Amino acid sequence: IVEKAGSNVREFKKGDKVAVESIMWCGRCQSCRSGFPNQCKHVELMGLSADGAFAEYVMVNERYCWKINDLAEVYTEEDVFDIGALIEPVGCAYNGIFIVGGGFNPGATVVVYGAGPIGLGAITLSKIAGASRIIAFDVIDERVKIARDIGADFAFNINKLDGCTPCNKVMEITRGWGADIQVEAAGAAPKTIPEMERSMAINGKIIYLGRAATSTPMHLDTLVSGANKIIGARGHSGHGIFPSIIRLITAGKLHLEKMITSRYPFENIMEAIKASSARKDGKILITNKM
Amino acid sequence: IVEKAGSNVREFKKGDKVAVESIMWCGRCQSCRSGFPNQCKHVELMGLSADGAFAEYVMVNERYCWKINDLAEVYTEEDVFDIGALIEPVGCAYNGIFIVGGGFNPGATVVVYGAGPIGLGAITLSKIAGASRIIAFDVIDERVKIARDIGADFAFNINKLDGCTPCNKVMEITRGWGADIQVEAAGAAPKTIPEMERSMAINGKIIYLGRAATSTPMHLDTLVSGANKIIGARGHSGHGIFPSIIRLITAGKLHLEKMITSRYPFENIMEAIKASSARKDGKILITNKM
Amino acid sequence: IVEKAGSNVREFKKGDKVAVESIMWCGRCQSCRSGFPNQCKHVELMGLSADGAFAEYVMVNERYCWKINDLAEVYTEEDVFDIGALIEPVGCAYNGIFIVGGGFNPGATVVVYGAGPIGLGAITLSKIAGASRIIAFDVIDERVKIARDIGADFAFNINKLDGCTPCNKVMEITRGWGADIQVEAAGAAPKTIPEMERSMAINGKIIYLGRAATSTPMHLDTLVSGANKIIGARGHSGHGIFPSIIRLITAGKLHLEKMITSRYPFENIMEAIKASSARKDGKILITNKM
Amino acid sequence: IVEKAGSNVREFKKGDKVAVESIMWCGRCQSCRSGFPNQCKHVELMGLSADGAFAEYVMVNERYCWKINDLAEVYTEEDVFDIGALIEPVGCAYNGIFIVGGGFNPGATVVVYGAGPIGLGAITLSKIAGASRIIAFDVIDERVKIARDIGADFAFNINKLDGCTPCNKVMEITRGWGADIQVEAAGAAPKTIPEMERSMAINGKIIYLGRAATSTPMHLDTLVSGANKIIGARGHSGHGIFPSIIRLITAGKLHLEKMITSRYPFENIMEAIKASSARKDGKILITNKM
Ligand SMILES: [Zn+2]
Ligand SMILES: [Zn+2]
Ligand SMILES: [Zn+2]
Ligand SMILES: [Zn+2]
Repeated sequence: IVEKAGSNVREFKKGDKVAVESIMWCGRCQSCRSGFPNQCKHVELMGLSADGAFAEYVMVNERYCWKINDLAEVYTEEDVFDIGALIEPVGCAYNGIFIVGGGFNPGATVVVYGAGPIGLGAITLSKIAGASRIIAFDVIDERVKIARDIGADFAFNINKLDGCTPCNKVMEITRGWGADIQVEAAGAAPKTIPEMERSMAINGKIIYLGRAATSTPMHLDTLVSGANKIIGARGHSGHGIFPSIIRLITAGKLHLEKMITSRYPFENIMEAIKASSARKDGKILITNKM
Repeated sequence: IVEKAGSNVREFKKGDKVAVESIMWCGRCQSCRSGFPNQCKHVELMGLSADGAFAEYVMVNERYCWKINDLAEVYTEEDVFDIGALIEPVGCAYNGIFIVGGGFNPGATVVVYGAGPIGLGAITLSKIAGASRIIAFDVIDERVKIARDIGADFAFNINKLDGCTPCNKVMEITRGWGADIQVEAAGAAPKTIPEMERSMAINGKIIYLGRAATSTPMHLDTLVSGANKIIGARGHSGHGIFPSIIRLITAGKLHLEKMITSRYPFENIMEAIKASSARKDGKILITNKM
Repeated sequence: IVEKAGSNVREFKKGDKVAVESIMWCGRCQSCRSGFPNQCKHVELMGLSADGAFAEYVMVNERYCWKINDLAEVYTEEDVFDIGALIEPVGCAYNGIFIVGGGFNPGATVVVYGAGPIGLGAITLSKIAGASRIIAFDVIDERVKIARDIGADFAFNINKLDGCTPCNKVMEITRGWGADIQVEAAGAAPKTIPEMERSMAINGKIIYLGRAATSTPMHLDTLVSGANKIIGARGHSGHGIFPSIIRLITAGKLHLEKMITSRYPFENIMEAIKASSARKDGKILITNKM
Repeated sequence: IVEKAGSNVREFKKGDKVAVESIMWCGRCQSCRSGFPNQCKHVELMGLSADGAFAEYVMVNERYCWKINDLAEVYTEEDVFDIGALIEPVGCAYNGIFIVGGGFNPGATVVVYGAGPIGLGAITLSKIAGASRIIAFDVIDERVKIARDIGADFAFNINKLDGCTPCNKVMEITRGWGADIQVEAAGAAPKTIPEMERSMAINGKIIYLGRAATSTPMHLDTLVSGANKIIGARGHSGHGIFPSIIRLITAGKLHLEKMITSRYPFENIMEAIKASSARKDGKILITNKM
């Protein structure tokens, strides 16, 4: 909630509910001026390089804020903030698939590796954007289940495929055509990329969002025959991402509440962070609502 | 149904159910070779310049046919052909919005003028592709109702807006932001385009599909301030359009049956054509099913 | 020349030579945040709504400035500022053709109507971007000549075509194929657009930059058969436009000096403005160099 | 030269000079019908799976042929065929950079690894398409020299960089910004890709054309921070590639003759193939001209 608006602030006033981008782009470097705030040269990340949001009040520049007052049309007062907190991870998926990745036309097959907050965002966005089939993989049963609940047509625990590999599964479901878009949101590139390489459709794309500070052995020639692409992306700022997601939620077309699997009160914050590393949850929220 | 496959035919065999593109592109001219069959220099249109499909058997080249056997997974035997016949008009909308028009990102506002077969296709496709709001206009109450049934969030009879203009309606619903995509499928450009011009969002596009062999007065300067585009399109061939639509139907994600508002048996064909010019219906089918 | 840099300024220091965007975008509205500064909701135009540049010193925000120190590698000290002043009109052409218009592939045919500063920018940029043929039209002989000097393969005075229409000329030169890109930089839409409509290639685009506060009668059905587009654009900010042009000049690949046809000293500024309305010149500069 | 045209052939007649695509796409599979002949499912490659062109007469389908009669406007009779033979490798570069790779805007920095026929094609096309700087690398001095002759602004022998790595060279020349487009045409991915990874600009792309049937270790996280892409491509068919190149040559804007470094008569064909594996030449031609 906006508690106090600076005197130069034009768009917000006391009492406005807002969602805040956590990428604090400078607005002056060449990347920012070229429309790529997620590649800002002088970026500060809220909660990492800058002060974070696990605090009662935060002071943020107007240009990172988006009004979410309208969410109250579909959610209760307290749910508005919970949903608002999900815009950021869903925004990362939006940026990867639709902005940097160029999106897909209705009827495409989408495969998502990793059903954490960003992976779940990829699934739910692909569902509302007209994928004909969404196939999800994770290594934890709980997350496989959430993936299915939130919109995956097929969801598998990679470790329980009965000898079948993920790429075979994709080829089987697509009858040998392969996947049009594959999202790496598992942070396990050395394991997932080789599978993806072998299940790409013609003009297929791999959207690489995950983090794995290791080397991944690739057979690049597999990119050649299908005119395939690997596309890296990060961030959620710019490109109309936040307002698009807010509009979808307000219109009742994007239901993110299923992503929330645990809620912790403010005082149990360390416990929440611990739970987060177990990777069994969808999105864990720090919230006043229980 | 394929009754007999020529000896060179590779993909089809007797008994296959097929949907057939009605644009008979040559495959040899520069347009065809460049991947633009809808702009084929030597095109023949089935039912216009070539023999049509109101016949018991038609001979068509393999390259205009797409298998729809899979539709039997979601529809009864006889419904398969009814649905199959809808792929063509929906394909024209798909081509205009997603192929030539470049599509839209989830959350966009889509406006459709004209709720005939192509306009209804535009509405239903926009719905499954993640539009946050779809606004439809027509001049006939029956069609306004079908538009709403098939997925428009707002649908109005232009003649019953109580003094409000369509462009005002769009600006009101979008709170002054305007429409991201507007589809002219009414064939009434001199009336609809001036409305569209005044309700475009930044980077907004007008997809012009309609036919109106007259001159339309335009205020082109309205395109300049918003970096807006007017995009003409026709046809439904190429670009993976037919297989994408077939995949969506098979996956149970695209429900075209609501578009069919009348069915006529083969022997009452002239009656059907007469009904078509009353423009009260969605899609009128010539079918064995009653 | 930067005389004094504010204390928060990061990238510039006293003595830097700079070119300045004249579109003063706010950096906070939804357009700006989405990467579209030319569509800024709160824009101020230097010299129009804000104080202009016909002054000895101007105070501008760092974010509108680009260093042009490097131009001194190819030009003399005083020429650097003359060339620097040309970046803005050339930037408008760059924005229209390559950013909003999506550019063209090497080998395309480009037609430019109007050989003023922006039209000449369109010609010279198309030349270095690989157009196979550039055809220019104007109504004044002097400008036709400059168009040819700066890179047009064909340049005609519309009033001296010996009964031939511009569109016929284009169809003749392209052997009936038509133009891939046509730029309206003449501000004479009611006259030029009807010609353009009749000489478009398949997938052809009209880039509309000109200003003509009148109504233009269009035959929109001509857009349909060729899947053609009309694209409006304005501005020169964002999208890496300024740095791209500066890099091209510094690399010795873009020679804008031919665009300058008259120079007026600061004290004769009113005379220069008068000459500008005669529309015989390319770019008229207010400069210390004579 | 067309010796005899089949009775159904519409566009060609006896005596026409033609260039022939060597990718014999079927025109009926889903890839072909979607406008991607280079990904044809039933493709035959002339000279590999089908009979080749080292013969006095070849029978080819009309749809793989393009008229090059116009080249006689700028070249002598016999040169026309030599130049015609270069369209294919240049077409592969055109496809990789401009079609699959999406091209670049004027002012971009292009880096090319490998100065064989396709790499030289990439250099010469980038030059005419408005790159501000082209940097080429090879391991053989002769090829480095040809690269420079044909348009590279900088060309280096990787083995003679005096301890400097190629990626450092690129970063130095671009003052730390990196390359917008990098083309792998060396077939040495395990060596070149790690260099490319470390010298990418924001939104930079690697166009992967080379062949290296080995595994390449990649640090995919480097793609994430710059929103970078790796794009595979092959082939030269479709997308207007051949006619665009022919138009550029005819207009005198693309000079491919410098690519030819050796000529062998038809009877010494085995010698030519041997020379080709020494990798010292640009393009080796089998020709009647000496
Ligand atoms: Zn920045
Ligand atoms: Zn054709
Ligand atoms: Zn703004
Ligand atoms: Zn094929």
